[in-house]
Amino acid sequence: MNPSDLKHLLSALSRGDLSVDEGMERLKTLPFEDLGVATVDHHRALRQGAPEVVFGQGKSIDQLLLITEAMAKHKSDILITRLDAEKGAALCERFPEGEFDELARTFVLRQSPEEIKGYGTILVICAGTSDLPVAREAAVTARALGHEVEEIADVGVAGLHRLLAKSENLNRAAVIIVVAGMEGALPSVVGGLVSVPVIAVPTSVGYGAAFGGTAALLGMLNSCASGLTVVNIDNGFGAGFAAHRINARRETP
Amino acid sequence: MNPSDLKHLLSALSRGDLSVDEGMERLKTLPFEDLGVATVDHHRALRQGAPEVVFGQGKSIDQLLLITEAMAKHKSDILITRLDAEKGAALCERFPEGEFDELARTFVLRQSPEEIKGYGTILVICAGTSDLPVAREAAVTARALGHEVEEIADVGVAGLHRLLAKSENLNRAAVIIVVAGMEGALPSVVGGLVSVPVIAVPTSVGYGAAFGGTAALLGMLNSCASGLTVVNIDNGFGAGFAAHRINARRETP
Amino acid sequence: MNPSDLKHLLSALSRGDLSVDEGMERLKTLPFEDLGVATVDHHRALRQGAPEVVFGQGKSIDQLLLITEAMAKHKSDILITRLDAEKGAALCERFPEGEFDELARTFVLRQSPEEIKGYGTILVICAGTSDLPVAREAAVTARALGHEVEEIADVGVAGLHRLLAKSENLNRAAVIIVVAGMEGALPSVVGGLVSVPVIAVPTSVGYGAAFGGTAALLGMLNSCASGLTVVNIDNGFGAGFAAHRINARRETP
Amino acid sequence: MNPSDLKHLLSALSRGDLSVDEGMERLKTLPFEDLGVATVDHHRALRQGAPEVVFGQGKSIDQLLLITEAMAKHKSDILITRLDAEKGAALCERFPEGEFDELARTFVLRQSPEEIKGYGTILVICAGTSDLPVAREAAVTARALGHEVEEIADVGVAGLHRLLAKSENLNRAAVIIVVAGMEGALPSVVGGLVSVPVIAVPTSVGYGAAFGGTAALLGMLNSCASGLTVVNIDNGFGAGFAAHRINARRETP
Amino acid sequence: MNPSDLKHLLSALSRGDLSVDEGMERLKTLPFEDLGVATVDHHRALRQGAPEVVFGQGKSIDQLLLITEAMAKHKSDILITRLDAEKGAALCERFPEGEFDELARTFVLRQSPEEIKGYGTILVICAGTSDLPVAREAAVTARALGHEVEEIADVGVAGLHRLLAKSENLNRAAVIIVVAGMEGALPSVVGGLVSVPVIAVPTSVGYGAAFGGTAALLGMLNSCASGLTVVNIDNGFGAGFAAHRINARRETP
Amino acid sequence: MNPSDLKHLLSALSRGDLSVDEGMERLKTLPFEDLGVATVDHHRALRQGAPEVVFGQGKSIDQLLLITEAMAKHKSDILITRLDAEKGAALCERFPEGEFDELARTFVLRQSPEEIKGYGTILVICAGTSDLPVAREAAVTARALGHEVEEIADVGVAGLHRLLAKSENLNRAAVIIVVAGMEGALPSVVGGLVSVPVIAVPTSVGYGAAFGGTAALLGMLNSCASGLTVVNIDNGFGAGFAAHRINARRETP
Amino acid sequence: MNPSDLKHLLSALSRGDLSVDEGMERLKTLPFEDLGVATVDHHRALRQGAPEVVFGQGKSIDQLLLITEAMAKHKSDILITRLDAEKGAALCERFPEGEFDELARTFVLRQSPEEIKGYGTILVICAGTSDLPVAREAAVTARALGHEVEEIADVGVAGLHRLLAKSENLNRAAVIIVVAGMEGALPSVVGGLVSVPVIAVPTSVGYGAAFGGTAALLGMLNSCASGLTVVNIDNGFGAGFAAHRINARRETP
Amino acid sequence: MNPSDLKHLLSALSRGDLSVDEGMERLKTLPFEDLGVATVDHHRALRQGAPEVVFGQGKSIDQLLLITEAMAKHKSDILITRLDAEKGAALCERFPEGEFDELARTFVLRQSPEEIKGYGTILVICAGTSDLPVAREAAVTARALGHEVEEIADVGVAGLHRLLAKSENLNRAAVIIVVAGMEGALPSVVGGLVSVPVIAVPTSVGYGAAFGGTAALLGMLNSCASGLTVVNIDNGFGAGFAAHRINARRETP
Repeated sequence: MNPSDLKHLLSALSRGDLSVDEGMERLKTLPFEDLGVATVDHHRALRQGAPEVVFGQGKSIDQLLLITEAMAKHKSDILITRLDAEKGAALCERFPEGEFDELARTFVLRQSPEEIKGYGTILVICAGTSDLPVAREAAVTARALGHEVEEIADVGVAGLHRLLAKSENLNRAAVIIVVAGMEGALPSVVGGLVSVPVIAVPTSVGYGAAFGGTAALLGMLNSCASGLTVVNIDNGFGAGFAAHRINARRETP
Repeated sequence: MNPSDLKHLLSALSRGDLSVDEGMERLKTLPFEDLGVATVDHHRALRQGAPEVVFGQGKSIDQLLLITEAMAKHKSDILITRLDAEKGAALCERFPEGEFDELARTFVLRQSPEEIKGYGTILVICAGTSDLPVAREAAVTARALGHEVEEIADVGVAGLHRLLAKSENLNRAAVIIVVAGMEGALPSVVGGLVSVPVIAVPTSVGYGAAFGGTAALLGMLNSCASGLTVVNIDNGFGAGFAAHRINARRETP
Repeated sequence: MNPSDLKHLLSALSRGDLSVDEGMERLKTLPFEDLGVATVDHHRALRQGAPEVVFGQGKSIDQLLLITEAMAKHKSDILITRLDAEKGAALCERFPEGEFDELARTFVLRQSPEEIKGYGTILVICAGTSDLPVAREAAVTARALGHEVEEIADVGVAGLHRLLAKSENLNRAAVIIVVAGMEGALPSVVGGLVSVPVIAVPTSVGYGAAFGGTAALLGMLNSCASGLTVVNIDNGFGAGFAAHRINARRETP
Repeated sequence: MNPSDLKHLLSALSRGDLSVDEGMERLKTLPFEDLGVATVDHHRALRQGAPEVVFGQGKSIDQLLLITEAMAKHKSDILITRLDAEKGAALCERFPEGEFDELARTFVLRQSPEEIKGYGTILVICAGTSDLPVAREAAVTARALGHEVEEIADVGVAGLHRLLAKSENLNRAAVIIVVAGMEGALPSVVGGLVSVPVIAVPTSVGYGAAFGGTAALLGMLNSCASGLTVVNIDNGFGAGFAAHRINARRETP
Repeated sequence: MNPSDLKHLLSALSRGDLSVDEGMERLKTLPFEDLGVATVDHHRALRQGAPEVVFGQGKSIDQLLLITEAMAKHKSDILITRLDAEKGAALCERFPEGEFDELARTFVLRQSPEEIKGYGTILVICAGTSDLPVAREAAVTARALGHEVEEIADVGVAGLHRLLAKSENLNRAAVIIVVAGMEGALPSVVGGLVSVPVIAVPTSVGYGAAFGGTAALLGMLNSCASGLTVVNIDNGFGAGFAAHRINARRETP
Repeated sequence: MNPSDLKHLLSALSRGDLSVDEGMERLKTLPFEDLGVATVDHHRALRQGAPEVVFGQGKSIDQLLLITEAMAKHKSDILITRLDAEKGAALCERFPEGEFDELARTFVLRQSPEEIKGYGTILVICAGTSDLPVAREAAVTARALGHEVEEIADVGVAGLHRLLAKSENLNRAAVIIVVAGMEGALPSVVGGLVSVPVIAVPTSVGYGAAFGGTAALLGMLNSCASGLTVVNIDNGFGAGFAAHRINARRETP
Repeated sequence: MNPSDLKHLLSALSRGDLSVDEGMERLKTLPFEDLGVATVDHHRALRQGAPEVVFGQGKSIDQLLLITEAMAKHKSDILITRLDAEKGAALCERFPEGEFDELARTFVLRQSPEEIKGYGTILVICAGTSDLPVAREAAVTARALGHEVEEIADVGVAGLHRLLAKSENLNRAAVIIVVAGMEGALPSVVGGLVSVPVIAVPTSVGYGAAFGGTAALLGMLNSCASGLTVVNIDNGFGAGFAAHRINARRETP
Repeated sequence: MNPSDLKHLLSALSRGDLSVDEGMERLKTLPFEDLGVATVDHHRALRQGAPEVVFGQGKSIDQLLLITEAMAKHKSDILITRLDAEKGAALCERFPEGEFDELARTFVLRQSPEEIKGYGTILVICAGTSDLPVAREAAVTARALGHEVEEIADVGVAGLHRLLAKSENLNRAAVIIVVAGMEGALPSVVGGLVSVPVIAVPTSVGYGAAFGGTAALLGMLNSCASGLTVVNIDNGFGAGFAAHRINARRETP
């Protein structure tokens, strides 16, 4: 039940077309069912163009096609993450207008006109080339959510000069996503160089005492740079979405 | 060496007051020493009024007084965290214009005129009354950095109606800091209700399999709500600083 | 040695057909061997119709057929868990009256007349669609043990309205099994909404810092909702069995 | 806003005393604020007599007295857990009608007439004498919630005969709470002996590789006895409350 | 009920003094109560002189005196472990014939005539001087259980020659207990030098990544020397008792 | 250099065939090279018939054949562990007199006459059928080392009567190896029933919070039964070898 | 910008060919971009002949060929680690002058004349044959970096005499790399025997409570031998490189 | 038995004063007892002047005085670590010529003439002021072992310019010890800037998910800079000793 439905109900009551008891009956189930949902979901309506997100891992090609077709009918924009090449190909064959990014393992189907809604560039940088898939997932997510994105790779802290050579890019970004595996030190260095929000993404790149990304995760949580925030290991999508929450254009109060 | 120093050097060279070899000698050590520092620190100069931050834990009263006096001479604003009552009292006695918050365990000494620089309210909510010290540390930090802050306590997920009763406050915030110990579920629920940035702060509240806040930390990192970010256990300061990074007023490019 | 055997022995003694020493000899080995077993197993006899349970994982098709045939001869009801599709097919071919649930990975062969023995409905709800296999295993187990079961899926805490829309179902259940992976927050919310027993089941759904279900497990153990209980990660069977222990009809003393 | 308030509102609308727009305005804030709260809290009203629970650890004597006085005015029954002897004495001095249990570290103030509401006895057994404080906390909690409780101590699995000597007590209980530290094996043995619900409580008793109760917790979660459920380490209160959820008298549908 | 009681019962039956039904009634409760206990405890009677063991940690002086007095009345030998100096002094004052070992933190009260019952010497060696308390607890335990014990200290693997200089002692021992903290490597080296049983005891000596003895524990569990066995961290008592199980003189079948 | 070589050297010196300086030179390098080795290995010579042990996992069929052939030439007895069926078949084809145990994943080639050298039976019992491979590895190892072995399966603590029915077997064993996965409670119960040495073997049987056998391992290390010892997870070989160390017939000093 | 470029710039300024403002403009971007990079990388130029290192794991054959070809054009020496046999074969086919070591899983392409640059031998020893791949990776790395390397295998601490027989080799090495899995005790023993630098490399060899090399890693970090240093699990490359840092010939100041 | 003893023995044999059998008897026990020890300890004699090291933690003042007095009599140099202020004062009172460093918690008593034996400077740098005690312990250790040491504090990676300003110091050091807590990123950055040996020391500075230094330790073990080595958490002594092993002047072979 949307606001106009509610208005009709109240009008009918007001006009006497509906008795008080009938009104009670219909409103009784509202709070958490219909009206409740509408209220909670209200902000969703306001961010038109936000894509539906599907976690592709563990879903079969058939399931993915089914879900995508259902969403496509509602003219939703769609972002599917964690797809292997075979699933990506199947989706591209069925939806030739969609875009599969093999590195990011994402599929994006855009049905609404694209418009840039952030008020600045989201910069995604990563420490090593092995971190690229996670970095790209963050970049694709942020772009799918309507933001301008810049990507820089292979600027690990053991080769500081490569990072420092990019200081101009760092300084003009609105939000920075820093992706790193192994010891995960890059966000600390970046966080000390800039004053904008920095989102740290640990990756599972590494071996032995990297413990599947735990070393990088702990490193980022304990950063000596003030005010960094962290997402789950390999969660490029989450970082892209967090950057979207920060960078979405809002009215100044 | 600042830009004007550099200009003097080049002018001297240009005038012949300095030989090429002398210039070489003096410039050789520049890149990472003087000029380098100036460049890296450039953005610091731009955020005038940001307080100096001191981690009070493990420092003696004498050390704290010494540090604070040194900073006070430079007219810096000062934020000291993790202070016990005794240290707080000593600082208040010496700096009666400063403010000690016993719950937050913070001391703030403001010497520059206060001005609100964020473009919206930072909302700090916490799950239980035991989480209050961490929540307050976040609030004090954000205020010391020049932001308007609202605080709500005791809205844990086991009493959902208390949280839902605050949905209006949630919806009008610019950034939300959610502080919770035990299972740390509150950020997930809040993250599903709002579209603004949500910073999750796990606390060490709990016992047994809470493992000093690890349960809450893992819960927040694995949140099913998209785009949450997380800081270290009990790191109210970090959350307040992260909110500052997000909420600081910036020019739209 | 069952009670009637014991009675015969005592009667023989009483009649003089058995000497005291012979009686001593025969009783000496009783306590933990024959009589002991009978005593311990007494309650088993009382819950006729309870199925024999087999953990299917790691057993070959041949082993499973052998075990099932042996049990089937004794007219036992049988529940086999953790079966893949191939093993399920083999069992169905041999026992066409059995039922294989591919999602739950269970096989049930019922040979006694079904009767509902619980005094209320067991509700199984799960947070995400990926949690369905574990939820279904719990449901199949509870049904195999003679209870009425209701299932609700995809009511995670990040979409609170979907859960609240089911509050009527929550309120009328006798026992609720709550299945969730990732941060495992759903049981806390449900536990705050109802007063009936809530059994929390963490699942291994998630990645990175989910650590194979550990994050969800810790979250549930540290729930801020009073009186939740928890079973092992992915242990749908255990949750179903625990619900059976609770919901089995008993005489009021 | 309760149902009768809602009826008044609708009647006013129906009578024309309220315009449709005014009705819209007043209903807009309903769902999660007033009506919502009322709905969610409905079951609370139904379990009158349930005590208010306060986690005493980390609260000062002054805070505890303040809270208790406030609750006492509302004629609530009160259960405070995790109290040391000094706090217990202070509460007893102020509320002489209350009862402090030094072993359980609990304080109970009962203001409503006591009535047994469970339909059977809750049995609390523990493995060693060091587990007694946790076992007693469970017992006090269950009694404060209106149940009949029986306690058995020191029946660890390394002295099996002591446990087996209590098999009659085990068999007549409605719910069994099993408290054990070190390897936590007792619940597995008990779970194999009875068919009623068994709630396992790991304790932090032990040293070295007990890791503060982790060994016992893992042991219980991995029990080979079907259908055990587990609560947090040292969480006697939680076990008592879970037993209450199970044992509370309910209408058979 | 002991064997002679059982004989009386059967005789009464045989004589007709007891009816079959009365016999049934009295035997029904036997298995796990009286006869059961007797059977299980049978071997206890056989190892007369074995001391009663009390875990002293967490018990007050009053409790310890009470327990010890009760045991002393039954002429039991008594071993109390994990005592601090104050408790030890209190026990010595009350039982001047007892022996308090401050290093081992043990108190032994021997009331039966001492006799050596093992068939060889138990050798207790430790890696560093900080491991001595645990080593001594093992030695005291083994002696209290009636074995000849030899102790060697400070033969860590980083000074191999000191260990090798003791190879004769190693070769003549019947059982060797090896106590080591830090990396816990000593048992591996000893295990490679001798063919007798080697019991490894990790200690909590160390810091940082020793994780309270976990490093030593894991080292010993993963020893490359075949057939070592391990007890809990700091569990000198357990090692001494295990050596007793091995070294107790038994009849060759 | 063996004893007879040494004797020759000394004789040459004694005869004047070798100067003192030449003797010094030749003896200088002895200690850790030739004589050293001989000394250290002295006890090896004493336990003639002990098999050479090869860890088969990770070795190719070719490597295994090569190693086995080399050893076979020296008439050594050979025990190879952790073999899959394919490798076992290859070894059996090449050494038809050898014995491959598919359950234990072991291959034994005996070339010396078998003789029982222990002074009692080693009993291997396991909790569940899934623990059988580890239990069998222990049994095969102990047999290959010359001991009489008895095996009992499926006597888990949740079905106590099955274990108690075997109490006679428990009581007549010289050493007991107890193999259990999941919560690993069986050794505690057995340790309380017998006075002989008990070696606990945790297995990786289980899932979720069993953490690959960690739960069972911790349970066994923290057993409330005195004097149990523990080996690594799934280390049936180690348990068999430890039992051999204990049970090998030795001269009473 | 290299020193001579800088000199040209200053000369132009000095000659008046460049204005002060133009000089400022060109120098402004120097610090972290051109000059900065040059400075930081200066020492790189000094260690001519150091190979480029590529982490081969996770890279496709095509990527590896591409990278290697690019590097080969610049006449760099190349070391690729973590290659399987298939990738090694592909590289050998394309670069027949390169060398693939199947055990070490490395490929080395040397294009500069080889010269020994260390001032002593690097000794690589390992505990068991399963540790050989990691030991060999260390050896190949050290050789590729220009050092003389000696390798000793299978000198684990359970067979001390084999290690002691190699004491001469230990004593003449300049740096020793000790590779061990399982309990990782070997470095402690070696560290006690020699005074030269010892680098400990834990390997993932082992099972159960070895936890993928964690037991060995912790053992090495907690070594009782003074002044050992440790690298990541299985990090043969890192150990070889650390030995290179130590052993590289340097001028005495 | 030292070389001259051995010579006497051989001479006696040569002269016929000793029979071959008597010689056999006396040499038989040599290898690991007397001669063995001498051999193993040979290199110790070569590094005269190396101080005796005592781990002060857990030792009483009386014990420390006793040990120190004993060593002082032998004219040994002495280094005691982990001393609190009270113990330091007691040592200084007794040995006024000794030096207690309160920050490092060390006491050094030098009795041999000091001489610099390293061939370059050991640089100790630390990330934050809280890391100073560990850094100083490393510095004191290296100095006590005869090396020239330079110390730099507070050059954490979040303020990169402060580190870069010290690049000249970094480049001229012979060995660098890098001490850091929290995320432990500093060694990675330093390792990328220099080619000399870098020893990383994690500290327990931090809170929450720092897990007592574990985060820093894991970060350093997984460093992306090649060839770093790591010591235990807070092990300044170990790092100083490792630097000594590297920097000790040796003859080029």
